[in-house]
Amino acid sequence: MGLVPVALDLIGIFVFALSGALLGVRIQFDIVGVIVLGAVTGLGGGIMRDVLIGDTPPASFTDWRYLAVPVVAALVAFRFHPKLARIERYVDWFDAMGLGLFCVLGTVKALFFGLDPIPAALMGVLTAIGGGVLRDLLANRMPVVLRQDVYAIPALAGATVVVLTWEAGVFREWVLVPAAALCIALRFLAMHRRWSAPRASDLRRD
Amino acid sequence: MGLVPVALDLIGIFVFALSGALLGVRIQFDIVGVIVLGAVTGLGGGIMRDVLIGDTPPASFTDWRYLAVPVVAALVAFRFHPKLARIERYVDWFDAMGLGLFCVLGTVKALFFGLDPIPAALMGVLTAIGGGVLRDLLANRMPVVLRQDVYAIPALAGATVVVLTWEAGVFREWVLVPAAALCIALRFLAMHRRWSAPRASDLRRD
Amino acid sequence: MGLVPVALDLIGIFVFALSGALLGVRIQFDIVGVIVLGAVTGLGGGIMRDVLIGDTPPASFTDWRYLAVPVVAALVAFRFHPKLARIERYVDWFDAMGLGLFCVLGTVKALFFGLDPIPAALMGVLTAIGGGVLRDLLANRMPVVLRQDVYAIPALAGATVVVLTWEAGVFREWVLVPAAALCIALRFLAMHRRWSAPRASDLRRD
Repeated sequence: MGLVPVALDLIGIFVFALSGALLGVRIQFDIVGVIVLGAVTGLGGGIMRDVLIGDTPPASFTDWRYLAVPVVAALVAFRFHPKLARIERYVDWFDAMGLGLFCVLGTVKALFFGLDPIPAALMGVLTAIGGGVLRDLLANRMPVVLRQDVYAIPALAGATVVVLTWEAGVFREWVLVPAAALCIALRFLAMHRRWSAPRASDLRRD
Repeated sequence: MGLVPVALDLIGIFVFALSGALLGVRIQFDIVGVIVLGAVTGLGGGIMRDVLIGDTPPASFTDWRYLAVPVVAALVAFRFHPKLARIERYVDWFDAMGLGLFCVLGTVKALFFGLDPIPAALMGVLTAIGGGVLRDLLANRMPVVLRQDVYAIPALAGATVVVLTWEAGVFREWVLVPAAALCIALRFLAMHRRWSAPRASDLRRD
Repeated sequence: MGLVPVALDLIGIFVFALSGALLGVRIQFDIVGVIVLGAVTGLGGGIMRDVLIGDTPPASFTDWRYLAVPVVAALVAFRFHPKLARIERYVDWFDAMGLGLFCVLGTVKALFFGLDPIPAALMGVLTAIGGGVLRDLLANRMPVVLRQDVYAIPALAGATVVVLTWEAGVFREWVLVPAAALCIALRFLAMHRRWSAPRASDLRRD
């Protein structure tokens, strides 16, 4: 990957690791647990993608920056969590940015590995939401992204832009920017307008 | 795989996805969560098997039918769940059929990949029960198949028939039918006679 | 691997499987669940390592002894658990031995597969704590090793000795013994002196 994608990837890892580490602090994990939960949240989605597409060992294990970033994020969360709590709204913003970055970067990687468009888009979504699902499993709570919140749909939208331009033969690296921006914008709207996806119980009145 | 094994595989995926999606509806997941839970239940066992035997990316990601079937199953569960609740007894029957199909198909695939008989049979059992275990993890409940019910043993019986005929050099594709039927029959018996495997507490009276 | 490493590996698997199976008995799993929980605890860390470094199918599936040992451990736990409860203190000792063996053996394997020192040490830690994390996920409880107890740090210490000697070019097979012994000694000290890693709440008084 070029320098820009790697930088975007590391930013995404940092913000996700921060969200995982903050959860670890809240549920009274010790510092080792906080680092593990942060690293799993930041790296888990990409690792699952790499294992599934057969790119082992995952990039996260062959590039020290991918390991250093979540550790730093976890230590920041551990030390400054009372201040971070005050800015938790901004953490949601960062999380949305991570979602946008991961869904497009994950999709592109899967396409480069020869996956078809639909599986590649799903790999992008997995990259984006996988870390959060693992975080919630380790924290012994039902995965937030499956239960509430419009979260996976913006990721799917960003991934779809990438595969459509790829299939049309007009994909260039800069496409990642508007594709990620679309995901981030949709996620912002979903948070601020409190969108929610339909539930089966909503149908009962039919 | 030939047309018949693929068709059996897709039927198994459909019924397992249905069971996962119905659980998602019951625990109030939104529609995205219901689709994810259905897909994980239908495809998870096969994906774990493929990752473990080194067949990546898993077939589920290279064949669109493997992705379409669980989505359709989830939408059916989402829309028609009040009617499905009335036929939940039949869902158990379908689930038993999925168990029988997956345990023999998973075993055969592992044998084709060069695994020894015992590991191959275990891969068959993993294919059959893995999706249900992942479903329960995501729903934050203890895996049903480990806690109650004679569920893994019928799968092991079906897988054993496949590896025995394979080792004896008399394996033909049609062997899958009686092997799956044995598993399904044992599972039916276990359900109707309320068989249960021994628990350690049962030994206390010794 | 030579005979000694394999023997050490099997001992580690046995004691970890025993801990998993005993938990299964305590939470009322039936005998199938007890065997599965024992096998996952004993083999899970090594399987995750093998999948991540790309060594599939994992050794556990190609060598019958790796499958037989956890089954025997589970049956021992199932049959003799009242007696084992009385010696639970010794189980902790065995568990510490498993930790020491797995962290150094996992690290060496990752180094042989070409991983860099830091990722290799992390693979050693994953090998040592991964089975216990999977055990706790299947038992639907928060992973003990993330929440309490100085557990991962001794494993990291043992793994560090291995990678340091490797990098210095002085690694020989016998280095595994003092490296594992360091981990085991630290774990014993942590248990007996009730060490605990810092928690973020401890910082509140700052």
